[in-house]
Amino acid sequence: MGLRRVGRVSARAGIVVTGTEVLTGRVRDLNGPWLADRLLELGVELAHVTQCGDRADDIDAQLRFLAGQQVDLIITSGGLGPTADDMTVEVVSRFCGRELVLDDGLERTIDEIVTGLMARFPDVDADAVRAANRKQALIPAGAQILTPVGTAPGVVVPGTPTVVVLPGPPRELQPMWRAAVATDAVQAAIAGRTRYEQHTVRMFGLPESGLADTLRDAEKTVPGFDRLEITTCLRRGELEIVTRVEPQHASAYTDLLSLLRDRHGREIFSTDGALVDDQVAELLAGRRIATAESCTAGLLAARLTERPGSSAYVAGAVVAYANDAKIELLGVDGEVIDAHGAVSEPVAEQMALGALRRFGADTGIGVTGIAGPGGGTAAKPVGTVCFSVVVRDDDGAVRALTRTTHMPGNRSDVRERSTTIAMHLLRRALIGAG
Amino acid sequence: MGLRRVGRVSARAGIVVTGTEVLTGRVRDLNGPWLADRLLELGVELAHVTQCGDRADDIDAQLRFLAGQQVDLIITSGGLGPTADDMTVEVVSRFCGRELVLDDGLERTIDEIVTGLMARFPDVDADAVRAANRKQALIPAGAQILTPVGTAPGVVVPGTPTVVVLPGPPRELQPMWRAAVATDAVQAAIAGRTRYEQHTVRMFGLPESGLADTLRDAEKTVPGFDRLEITTCLRRGELEIVTRVEPQHASAYTDLLSLLRDRHGREIFSTDGALVDDQVAELLAGRRIATAESCTAGLLAARLTERPGSSAYVAGAVVAYANDAKIELLGVDGEVIDAHGAVSEPVAEQMALGALRRFGADTGIGVTGIAGPGGGTAAKPVGTVCFSVVVRDDDGAVRALTRTTHMPGNRSDVRERSTTIAMHLLRRALIGAG
Repeated sequence: MGLRRVGRVSARAGIVVTGTEVLTGRVRDLNGPWLADRLLELGVELAHVTQCGDRADDIDAQLRFLAGQQVDLIITSGGLGPTADDMTVEVVSRFCGRELVLDDGLERTIDEIVTGLMARFPDVDADAVRAANRKQALIPAGAQILTPVGTAPGVVVPGTPTVVVLPGPPRELQPMWRAAVATDAVQAAIAGRTRYEQHTVRMFGLPESGLADTLRDAEKTVPGFDRLEITTCLRRGELEIVTRVEPQHASAYTDLLSLLRDRHGREIFSTDGALVDDQVAELLAGRRIATAESCTAGLLAARLTERPGSSAYVAGAVVAYANDAKIELLGVDGEVIDAHGAVSEPVAEQMALGALRRFGADTGIGVTGIAGPGGGTAAKPVGTVCFSVVVRDDDGAVRALTRTTHMPGNRSDVRERSTTIAMHLLRRALIGAG
Repeated sequence: MGLRRVGRVSARAGIVVTGTEVLTGRVRDLNGPWLADRLLELGVELAHVTQCGDRADDIDAQLRFLAGQQVDLIITSGGLGPTADDMTVEVVSRFCGRELVLDDGLERTIDEIVTGLMARFPDVDADAVRAANRKQALIPAGAQILTPVGTAPGVVVPGTPTVVVLPGPPRELQPMWRAAVATDAVQAAIAGRTRYEQHTVRMFGLPESGLADTLRDAEKTVPGFDRLEITTCLRRGELEIVTRVEPQHASAYTDLLSLLRDRHGREIFSTDGALVDDQVAELLAGRRIATAESCTAGLLAARLTERPGSSAYVAGAVVAYANDAKIELLGVDGEVIDAHGAVSEPVAEQMALGALRRFGADTGIGVTGIAGPGGGTAAKPVGTVCFSVVVRDDDGAVRALTRTTHMPGNRSDVRERSTTIAMHLLRRALIGAG
């Protein structure tokens, strides 16, 4: 993994992640990486991420440190709740030299939200909760309010640096960040940013070293290659190549993409940002799919149904862990299991066909493998997984695409990666490129 | 989320995580959380974690920041490789006011390691690699060397603060941290640490504000409450309360636990660190479970099979998204669906019974709900989910525990939270406490 950086100065930012549960490693911080990505998209340079517990002195020290590093923008996450250890707004207010003032409109908004929530918890003293939440309506004088997505409002405090204060839960922070970016204060703070075009190429089935070779060649043959900022990332067998380029150097990216297509045309599955999930969802429109899963144990069905509207094309799934479940529910032939083993291509294919028939579907997929840590043999070590996709074509004929793979990693890795491989096989079978 | 902190000084530490791939969020930092845990175990207070890219000025700024915060110990991770953007040792050396000196013994050690590695890559110019690696044998004068686990040595630089420099790959960092702790320099730096006992209580079904009320009361009624350091964290409906206490104040924790049991006995499900997953796995030993899932779409089956050995008690699952799949595969009565709707307690119960029968299991669970964003009605809004657990007792009688809940959040939240609720209902049904 790596980054080729173009050495040019633009707007700089720092992120302060508060919360003892994050500092102590009990909760994984999702906000730092998510905000880092958003800043990258905007062309704002992220200089520092700092994490501290719910202590006023520590939060204040980090704000001062970042200000001393001449960042234009500070983003904080966490510490906006109603309890005494939620203190970010107060600390930021003091840091920015502004008084805390009660915002009446905001207090009413929070009241309405909290009253709605309280309906679910009839035992709780609503007055006490409302009093606690009143604290959340205190904001730094002159700050801009970010409407709560949960119960906690955020604020944008204009200045040098400008400070954006966001709540900790990612599902609240993310839409509120988008609102923050739209404010005049944030736009002014990041005015010096470099405007980039960003492109993403995704590949499946290419080792990282193969890509590294190609990029080394590109360095010699692609004019303007040094104007491209390229980040590569390998995740579960998928390689993601993100390239940022200023518009005046766009042809360097076009040339790079041509080279990638020449060398790795078969492995490239997306050049427009689409995920394999997007592509499979599109290919399944008007169809009806069912899965038969052993080692992935429902992860594939769960992934196919992640997006809204998937009930239009997902009929269902059978997770058949036990052999008798494979026989009873999916109609797998017991003799085939005896002859080839439960982890075998014939069984994967029979599972796929069983799912297709059972659910009256036109697309079926079977996955059977050894996730470990036990169950491996010399012939079929842990990480051996068989996949089969069966597709009924318009003429009624059923064709199958069947593969066996061997993958590294622990139980969780094998299950996750098998799910991704299944998505890619599904894609190939559905576009008929299998 | 929050922390009650005991205002007592012990040894304080800071962590500097370097690496552009971590800062930009492309690679998840595993070292910060891991080191945070180790420091907690040691009784060393972690004040700050900072992340920056591979830039000398930024690393130096973070070291200075931490020193200014009077930490006794700084731990760095990353930037020890042979290439030009690996610069941590050099920056630390300058920061500590020490010269970089070549260590002959270390150079020989690295040479041996690298020669061994090169055997695998015959194409690489061994001399060039060796020259590059020679840079890794430069250490701050007077520093203690940490023998490489990979190719990169670490160092411990005694002083105020003492600085421990570790490599980025977790499998190298972790054993080298253990070696670092054993050095006199680190032991001297953390001599002021406090020795704690740590306890974890987990609850389900209590709003955070309810716990906050109890903790406010505890402040008044529990002798020595101010000696407890309490962290609370809410995650998918589960509340986790971690308490650290010095051994001489252990009775304060015992009293707090009594109060929690009095007030929230029904909601407490674990006081020994066990997760609901651990408890369900234990309760299922010798049993055989099958799931019938609609909105969770396989997530429950996937969760039940996360741990090794689960194939002993998980028979399988049917994901029945479509109504006809509920009827065909699970034997749900079409008239019951017509009368009550697919999202209803009678259907959840029939799904659970269908799974139990289909898989010849003795425990079945049915989940049917509206994950959204579409599909909600006034009577059954998005977030309405019906659960039913059926358990066949030793005498052959089947009993059911059936519940309907309404939960907030988006599609992903509803699916995840439903999975957790299902685990808790399963637990209650299996211990007969339904």
